[in-house]
This record gives sequence, structure tokens and C-alpha cells, in this order.
Amino acid sequence: MDETIASLADAFASPGGAEVRQRGGFTLRNRRDGVLEWMPSMRPGETVTLKMVAYNPENPRLHGLPTIMASNSVYDCATGALTAIVDGTFATAVRTGAASAVASQHLADPDSSVLGMVGCGAQAVTQIHALARVLPLKRVLAVDPDEAAWRSLGQRVAFTGLPVEPATLREIEEQADVICTATSVPAGEGPVIAGDLQRLKSHVHINAVGSDLPGKTELPLPLLEAAVVCPDYVPQAVVEGECQQLLRDAVGPTLPEVVERGLGPSLRERITVFDSTGFALEDQIVTEIIIDHARRLGVGTQLPLFTGTDDALDPYRFATQAGSGTDDVSRRRLLSA
Amino acid sequence: MDETIASLADAFASPGGAEVRQRGGFTLRNRRDGVLEWMPSMRPGETVTLKMVAYNPENPRLHGLPTIMASNSVYDCATGALTAIVDGTFATAVRTGAASAVASQHLADPDSSVLGMVGCGAQAVTQIHALARVLPLKRVLAVDPDEAAWRSLGQRVAFTGLPVEPATLREIEEQADVICTATSVPAGEGPVIAGDLQRLKSHVHINAVGSDLPGKTELPLPLLEAAVVCPDYVPQAVVEGECQQLLRDAVGPTLPEVVERGLGPSLRERITVFDSTGFALEDQIVTEIIIDHARRLGVGTQLPLFTGTDDALDPYRFATQAGSGTDDVSRRRLLSA
Repeated sequence: MDETIASLADAFASPGGAEVRQRGGFTLRNRRDGVLEWMPSMRPGETVTLKMVAYNPENPRLHGLPTIMASNSVYDCATGALTAIVDGTFATAVRTGAASAVASQHLADPDSSVLGMVGCGAQAVTQIHALARVLPLKRVLAVDPDEAAWRSLGQRVAFTGLPVEPATLREIEEQADVICTATSVPAGEGPVIAGDLQRLKSHVHINAVGSDLPGKTELPLPLLEAAVVCPDYVPQAVVEGECQQLLRDAVGPTLPEVVERGLGPSLRERITVFDSTGFALEDQIVTEIIIDHARRLGVGTQLPLFTGTDDALDPYRFATQAGSGTDDVSRRRLLSA
Repeated sequence: MDETIASLADAFASPGGAEVRQRGGFTLRNRRDGVLEWMPSMRPGETVTLKMVAYNPENPRLHGLPTIMASNSVYDCATGALTAIVDGTFATAVRTGAASAVASQHLADPDSSVLGMVGCGAQAVTQIHALARVLPLKRVLAVDPDEAAWRSLGQRVAFTGLPVEPATLREIEEQADVICTATSVPAGEGPVIAGDLQRLKSHVHINAVGSDLPGKTELPLPLLEAAVVCPDYVPQAVVEGECQQLLRDAVGPTLPEVVERGLGPSLRERITVFDSTGFALEDQIVTEIIIDHARRLGVGTQLPLFTGTDDALDPYRFATQAGSGTDDVSRRRLLSA
């Protein structure tokens, strides 16, 4: 987590190292509409990382699987070959936490001790973990309509040493220095917090993590209008983030701009919102870190994918070549097909 | 190949079974510009197949690798999980051949006996193979500025039983009933054939396979203007296919429309061009066929990708859970990181 936070901050501070494309995707017509999206990022001359990520809010209930599932694939720019695949579900949770940590380092009160967690699912774990690495947190106040999720959060983040206390939304608004919203609220059914400006701390920083679909928003418009709203990546944020609710000129500097231009000190006494939609550069960075760790730890599986041969001009060579790794029976069957 | 040809024809005849997105991509600033592109197709409620394909014309010379390299990944619509990865290099060659076969079944003279092959690289192998499955070919006339490629083509397609004869471009234009162009001509340096209307057979059918980049075209404009030009997928063809050269209303029916509406008999006495840019539905179909064959033949590798756990709400559970498949040392290291 520390490496991911540091690498993200470095990448934001030195823009131009990567080309990022806005995600595209399909709507999945499951019981509750989900999406399956591709998120490409390129380090020119080095690698392209493409995350394929699905959002299926019924996954935990129907399949015992996470709401967000992803796989991150890495391709060599020199040849186009696929060189690595990493579980993107874990990677997404880590990088989403790390992005909130970078935002909070710059935009939250450095003495923040109370974190309000709205939504206690998988993303809450890495939000709390990441923020605990950059702020002197003492308490986590948490709320979730799913009581099982809410009850188990303390155990899931026990490794941070932070106590998780049940709280109402009102208590969170009144007491939190930093709030994270990471919910599965359906499109059109937000916001998830009242955002009463009389109640919120005047320096509160909010990491709005859950908004990632057209129509899905977690924060009320008056709060956004009163705050400095810093999106991660404008082309996405205006389509699927909190910035959907704002006119373009009401959107504040992006988080990369805040980091690069050192804008944090001038903003952190105000109410600030990090509009986190998650963008492909973050996925590329965490994927590189995971691959690096996997290499050092000797974990992972090497496997042949490309039916490499001694003749780049013969697509069938793998089937006709002795010692190609395909056994004789398979080879004969392939040829007879 | 027969299955791929039949499945493609079926899919074209019954449109609506898949949602296809135009490919997006990055330009690779290698010695000679290449591209790395993603091509998504979804069967709603079933699977999404995403092909990641690179075009690097220096691959054979610099790396001993094919010009076109690809990997095809399949995702489950219900959960978003990655379920299969298939070498897309082989798959691309097969489906590109199969698409030309479907086009030639509908648009070429059914008695075609002479195939002219312009370009003798990897794609030539599957073009010849596929066309030999649907037309009563007797001779293949072939030309390529790369003499080694040209010399080895006969051996690479020996399994078809067809003799490959060296020929000039002029001989090909004069004698061929069907012509395939599958070259790596750089953008801006086409066309690759003269396309003299006095010389070509009046019923000639041309599968223009190589054009797949803005500026890259293989056929001269007067030939396109005299012909019925049938693209595979209009949004791509007008950007990177032969249809780049045509005004939109000069573009003929698409190949899927030709198949669905049975237009072949009314067109095949004219000069016809199949503008094959390759689209994601073709990749989805061939990937499904390859996976089906792999299952039946018992080839392929099963591997765990998702760090699945008994708690969908805990992204770190794989590291804290006994018997998670991560050994103790790795687990301790992960946790201490």
C-alpha cells in the first residue's frame, strides 16, 4: 500500500509518463444492471495495461463474489505480446484506497483523527488501510444498511489497529475529519449522505469513491457546490462521477493538478471532495507493483500462451512442428480438423 | 476452419446476437509505427470477448515474431470474471481467412479455379486454406516483394494440396478469379495492385485483407469505384479499410447484409471487393470454437487467477486465510508489506 501511494503521487507529480484512455464498456443486463468495462493505459515504448473490470452489485449475494471483479493484463509495446495477467479485483481495491490516501494527504487536515466510513464493503477495507498510512487516525465511525457488512468491518481492518465504531450518518457528518463514501447505491437513488453544511466540519475532506456510473452519485449537489471538487480524471468524472452534477466550470483542479502544483495547503481549510472514478493510470501503477512483488516473492504461474514457432509466417506451424509442446495425438487431431 | 466459416456465416445471417464495439487503440512509436488495439464483442447475458491485437510490421525481422500478435480474453457477463485466454495470433489468422471464405462464397464466381495471392505472409496461409474449403481452386498465383516469404508459401500451404506458382502482379490481375491482398504496405504507399479494369476478369472478387490502419490501403480508387465494395463493419472500414477512399454513399452493402439478405447472386457477375478490416464478432466466434476444441482435446492450462476467498468483502482475505494456496512465508511477507 505504501508503495502504491508513493507511486501514484509520483505519477501525478510528473504528468506525461502515460497515455490514458477513458474507459469504454458494455451494460450487462443482469438482474440489476451491471457493467463490464475496459480501461487502457500506456507507458509509451514500454507497456500497455488494460484492466477489464465488472461491476455487478448482486455478485456477493448470488455468487459469493465481490461486487467489483477485474483482471489486469499487461502487453509489451515492442511486440504486442501479452506478458502478464494480475487479479484486478485485489489491485482495484488497493489502488482505489491509495488514490484516496494521496487525495487526503493533500486535501485533508494533516491532524485528521476521525474517519467516517459510509459503506462497509470490500472497498472500505482498503480505504481505511490507505488512510491509516497517511493520517494520524484514532477512530473509524462506520455505517452500512447491510448489518453483516457493518458488523464484520472491524475484524476485516483489525490489522490496522484502528477501532471501528458503529455510527449514524449524522454522527459521521458531525464528527469526521475525513469521510469516505464507498457504496453500491443504485443510479438515481443517491445521495447517501445529507451533507448538511451546518453539521459538517469546516475542513472536512470527502473521498467520494462509489460514484462510477451515469446517474450514480453519493453526494448532494449543495455540498458539491460549497466544496472544492477535485476529480481524478475529468473525462470520466463528468460522465460517471460526482462531477456529473456540476457544470464544467464548477469542477475544481484535478487531483493530479493538486499534487503537481502543490495546491493542497491553499485548499485544505475548505470543504474538499475527491471525486474518485478510478482511472487506468492507477491500474497500470498498481499492476506494476504487484508484478514486481510477485517476481520477488517467487509467486505466480508462468505459462505459454502464444503458440510460438520457428516460423513467424506459418500460423499452423505449432501443429506441424515436432517438439512444439503439443502432443502427437492432439497434433494429429488438430490437423485432421 | 470449416466450423469457423459456418459459424461466421450463421452469425452474419442472424444479426443481433452480439454487440460489437469499434476498436480503440494506442499508436506504438516503435521504429515503424505499429498499433495496439482492443476489440470488444458481447453476447448479452453470456460472455464478452476482448481481443487485444498488435500490429508491428518489424516483428518478424527484429523479434522472429508475427507481424500481428493478439490474445483473446473471455469474461463471464454474470460475474465479470475472466474465464479463458486464447492465443489470438492464431485465432486472428483463422478468422480472417474464414471471413474471406464467407465473402467469396457469396460474392465470387462459384466456379473460381484461380486464386491470386498478393502478399505471402502469415495471413496468406489461412486465406488460401479458407478459400480452398469453399471454392474449386486449382491454382494459386502468388507474389511478394519478400522473396523468402514468397518461396516458402508453397510449403506452408502444402496441406491444402494446392500448387503455388510464382506470378507477376499483371499475371494475377489477368488470370485470377479471386484475388486476396494481404500485405504490410505502409500507410500512404498503396495501392499494391494496379487494378486495371481492362485486365481484370469481369467477375473478379477481391478480398482486401491488409487495410487496417488510417492511410493504409491496397486497392486503387478507380477499381473501388467500379466495384461493389462490401465492408465487414462500416464504422471501422471508413476509418481504416479500403472504404477510407470512398464517400459513404459509394460503400456497398456490408458482408453481413449480403449474407442475411442473400444478395450474392445479384452481385457476383460484377467486380466485388470484400473490405475486411476484421471485427470483434469474428474474434468472439473463433475464440469460442478454439475453447470448445481445447476442452474436447483436453489441452490448455487451468490456473487460478482470482484470489478467491470465503469473504467477498475482504480484499486481504487471501493473505490471512489458512489454506488459501499462498504459502506461509509469502503470506507473512505480504502482510508485513
